[in-house]
Amino acid sequence: MVAGYNGKILRVDLSRGKTSVDEPEEGFYRHYMGGRAFVSYYLLRELNGGVDPLGPQNKLIFAGGPVTGIPIAGSGRNSVGAKSPLTNGYGDAEVGGFWGAEFRQAGYDAIIIEGKAERPVYIWIEDGKVEIKDARHLWGKTTGECQKLIQQESGISGVRVAQIGIAGENQVKYACVVNDINHAAGRSGMGAVMGSKNLRAIAVRGRQKVELADSRAVTSLARRIRDILKTHRAAVAMSQNGTAGGLVALNAAGGLPTRNFKEGVFEGAEKISGQLMNESILAGRGGCYACPIRCKPEVSVGEPYNVDPLYGGPEYETLAALGSDCGIDNLEAVAKGNQQCSAYGLDTISTGASIAFAMECFENGILTDKDTDGMKLNFGNAEAMLQMVEMIARREGLGKVLADGVAKAASAFGKGAEEFAMHVKGQEIPMHEPRFKPGLGVGYTISPTGADHCHNIHDSAFTMRVGGALRALGVSEPLPCQELSSAKVRMLVYGSLWQHTLNCMVFCNFVPFTTAQMVELVTGITGWDTNVWELMKVGERCINMERAFNIREGKNKADDYLPKRFFNAFDSGPLKGVGIKEEELVKAIDTYYGMVGWDKEGTPSLAKLQELGIEWVNGA
Amino acid sequence: MVAGYNGKILRVDLSRGKTSVDEPEEGFYRHYMGGRAFVSYYLLRELNGGVDPLGPQNKLIFAGGPVTGIPIAGSGRNSVGAKSPLTNGYGDAEVGGFWGAEFRQAGYDAIIIEGKAERPVYIWIEDGKVEIKDARHLWGKTTGECQKLIQQESGISGVRVAQIGIAGENQVKYACVVNDINHAAGRSGMGAVMGSKNLRAIAVRGRQKVELADSRAVTSLARRIRDILKTHRAAVAMSQNGTAGGLVALNAAGGLPTRNFKEGVFEGAEKISGQLMNESILAGRGGCYACPIRCKPEVSVGEPYNVDPLYGGPEYETLAALGSDCGIDNLEAVAKGNQQCSAYGLDTISTGASIAFAMECFENGILTDKDTDGMKLNFGNAEAMLQMVEMIARREGLGKVLADGVAKAASAFGKGAEEFAMHVKGQEIPMHEPRFKPGLGVGYTISPTGADHCHNIHDSAFTMRVGGALRALGVSEPLPCQELSSAKVRMLVYGSLWQHTLNCMVFCNFVPFTTAQMVELVTGITGWDTNVWELMKVGERCINMERAFNIREGKNKADDYLPKRFFNAFDSGPLKGVGIKEEELVKAIDTYYGMVGWDKEGTPSLAKLQELGIEWVNGA
Repeated sequence: MVAGYNGKILRVDLSRGKTSVDEPEEGFYRHYMGGRAFVSYYLLRELNGGVDPLGPQNKLIFAGGPVTGIPIAGSGRNSVGAKSPLTNGYGDAEVGGFWGAEFRQAGYDAIIIEGKAERPVYIWIEDGKVEIKDARHLWGKTTGECQKLIQQESGISGVRVAQIGIAGENQVKYACVVNDINHAAGRSGMGAVMGSKNLRAIAVRGRQKVELADSRAVTSLARRIRDILKTHRAAVAMSQNGTAGGLVALNAAGGLPTRNFKEGVFEGAEKISGQLMNESILAGRGGCYACPIRCKPEVSVGEPYNVDPLYGGPEYETLAALGSDCGIDNLEAVAKGNQQCSAYGLDTISTGASIAFAMECFENGILTDKDTDGMKLNFGNAEAMLQMVEMIARREGLGKVLADGVAKAASAFGKGAEEFAMHVKGQEIPMHEPRFKPGLGVGYTISPTGADHCHNIHDSAFTMRVGGALRALGVSEPLPCQELSSAKVRMLVYGSLWQHTLNCMVFCNFVPFTTAQMVELVTGITGWDTNVWELMKVGERCINMERAFNIREGKNKADDYLPKRFFNAFDSGPLKGVGIKEEELVKAIDTYYGMVGWDKEGTPSLAKLQELGIEWVNGA
Repeated sequence: MVAGYNGKILRVDLSRGKTSVDEPEEGFYRHYMGGRAFVSYYLLRELNGGVDPLGPQNKLIFAGGPVTGIPIAGSGRNSVGAKSPLTNGYGDAEVGGFWGAEFRQAGYDAIIIEGKAERPVYIWIEDGKVEIKDARHLWGKTTGECQKLIQQESGISGVRVAQIGIAGENQVKYACVVNDINHAAGRSGMGAVMGSKNLRAIAVRGRQKVELADSRAVTSLARRIRDILKTHRAAVAMSQNGTAGGLVALNAAGGLPTRNFKEGVFEGAEKISGQLMNESILAGRGGCYACPIRCKPEVSVGEPYNVDPLYGGPEYETLAALGSDCGIDNLEAVAKGNQQCSAYGLDTISTGASIAFAMECFENGILTDKDTDGMKLNFGNAEAMLQMVEMIARREGLGKVLADGVAKAASAFGKGAEEFAMHVKGQEIPMHEPRFKPGLGVGYTISPTGADHCHNIHDSAFTMRVGGALRALGVSEPLPCQELSSAKVRMLVYGSLWQHTLNCMVFCNFVPFTTAQMVELVTGITGWDTNVWELMKVGERCINMERAFNIREGKNKADDYLPKRFFNAFDSGPLKGVGIKEEELVKAIDTYYGMVGWDKEGTPSLAKLQELGIEWVNGA
């Protein structure tokens, strides 16, 4: 028995309708820890190269880590991973809420879903018992309806549901997995994989607390953290404004993605700001298991949009993706779009970015009224945006093409549409402008899941939570935001390692734990005499397994690149004249490879794999 | 003002008779920390490539670290470094005792000695004040006499003296620096460098305690460690037997260097054992500043050898070097040899190894009665060994040649003597058999100072203090002793990084602190929110600076090699048939390079230097 773990990995074979349990040794848990590292370990070990991401050979993994479900702020998270239908490479997203905690308390550390059910099903887990149940009556329902039905038919209280919506059912390639209705494992199209398996939901109820090595130490730390959060500047700001708090400042600095990344300043920024949301449509704030920060907005909007706080409210990414990036300054419409994405299980980033892409194509004559059935798909048209959300989720009309993501849509459209397809490796760019944050831009290029900001650094990292970690790791001072030096790459490498480490624990990015407190936490949970070195090596192991996965799928150095748009300088705004220099980017990528022990082609060296104790990766 | 440091680096220019003080920023201290990293930093920055190690352009550096002189077990250490006259490369040795603590309490963190005095001098430091004093009356004296004279003429009590003996005066290339008479910074010939500068001694008296960030935390840790040491198995064993305790077991396992490493079993092992020493000539035990372990033997021997406990007693290295490696089973003679080495300032390892080499040459007819003035320089001849110690220290007769080390002596002797010259990069092999500990053998090849066991791992590391650290670093289990796998190289890499880190703090190898306690200690001293990752990176920075220094001196991959003898299997004893396979060694060296981010030629990659924040190294 490993303290802090259930010691059980659940397998559900949907093709055969069978379940089984793996019981790994302590060495496995210590080496791979949880979350993303579990995901990358199992995907690399158990998938064959080249499998169809939407075929029964793909596996879908939900993984907690030692921290998941422990009663302490930041612990309400889990990973969801599979081969991605969006990138045809490694797919993974982390998500908060309550489902992960409930799942771990139901007796498992992770669940590996294999095969494909003959007809719609959902998985029911209660205190270790597992059932595969009919879900035909849930198919086609909104996430809100589906959760309600499952909870009702369970006959018990406290049931948590992770599920797809109709977007997942329709295998929209950026469909997400939603839990607790308004928490999304958004990126990489995990919802499409789940849909391809005819799996609508995983409902869990757990009453078994994970046994801790030193529960007194964990409780003491939890109490201290709770006190710290009351006055910690970043935490208080997150409590008050959530992720939306920084939108206006970002716009003022010239880094707010606007009109499909054509611009960095949006004239309507104030109208979609977190401040305005607070003062107008905010109905309350929600949060995650055991966390007092409660950073998530819940909004209420009347006619004509009718937004229900059940579906939460738009985060920063959503405000920018459905707002500024589409040139839309109508907060209520953005809130509606957000609700529909939650109800249908769509990643708001890729959805907004796909619509923005289509808008630019429309304005440039690549798409015409004929393609849109007469819809005026111009930047700024809120109604068109909302209609496109519906059409993507249902794969109707133009939505059918956009549901495959901008990379594939650009191929389908032709006529130079590629110029407007803002993606890396097929995944749409999140709402962080690489010209404003070039270090993060380098991170996009190398990220295993394509453009992704969740295991990346922000160039102004020292104003953020990760800043404390970076200082403790030896990156001693902030660097100019637009600098793209080897020092910036070092910050990226250390920052990415640490963020990957958090994603293996699995722990929140926003709760301002120090590195020392993370060590204290993992030690209290597991009893291991661990330290930042060992924890960072878990993150490094994970990055290397992910990279190896992508190499097996045929990805190489040529896939580590940014859309050309970012090499053009802004022609207005505070960043006028600022663009990424291609040769600087290429150099930074080479430097990154070198720093992490990859060869010139970006392949992990044998010695690096050996140093990490994962030599097996080379034969996988 | 940086907590835990004096914030002052003293410079003494002996050519001009001037002193000055550098006051580095906190960033410097955090990046390089102390000890070896200070040494390698300054040598790389301030020496030109190719300087004569025994010329005035070489610099001799004594460096403490944040731990040096803090009242806690393990803190009585400092580094002594310079370009080595023995290897013509990077030279450095760590030493315990009381001098380092006194030096730090005299107001400095390190001293850089430049130039050459016109005539013999010594440096006097009292609470920040520095004087260069005449030492003509000390020249030629034993270390015991010299220390006594300096202490007497100071007129105050508590004066600590670091000095050379006549071996250093005569620039024997493996002359050591001795402090407190029986603590030697033994390896690399630092005593010869000191002698070349006409500097006989550095005498210090310090009454200024280094200010700590959190002295209560440090005191609390010191108290806990003191309690732990009372019952800690390894610590108690060190208290009872010192380093000599393991000699018999090592012999039983077949790994005791015998007759110039020809054999691994010595029939007279019991007669030079720690156990016998304890029962016969032991007069007491000495130790270092603030340490209750007191692992150092003090022996007393009557006629004809007359050994004074003032000079301590033979450590394991000395028992093997002057004993088994010379085929000598006369403990009292070995104790005498040890005393003479302390009195003259000779490294016992290189001294013993040089004599063993000469003995093998004599037995093989490469040296004859004519070369030895009739002395029967056979293995086992204790009187010959003692006479050779005298002759080496005085550079008389055959001693004149042997005083240059076995590599140069072999060239001088010719006739195939090279076959018997047991050294790496010119430094004699310490008393750890690479065939018994092949991982340590790999460490010998790569060590910046040539064959050196002080920043190396032992293949049975898990029985030792470093085992706990290795476990915490993620090397989860012991490996078979004779295995030379990539896993063993990983153990070596992690172990070397950690040992280098300890040598930058500067901290003892033998006091069983956990990695977590070392973090607690450094945090208490400096106030830095540090962690094992940051500390390991200091060690890694140090290793890379040392490597870069050697590359500048023209060393390359070809210098990372073991004497051919170790490729021959033992033909008797428990390790009969065991030898190092050359192709395995070559592969292990390549693996090591890869793991630490060096290219195929063993040159640190630019990206690695950038990752460590020491890009400047490439232009140095």
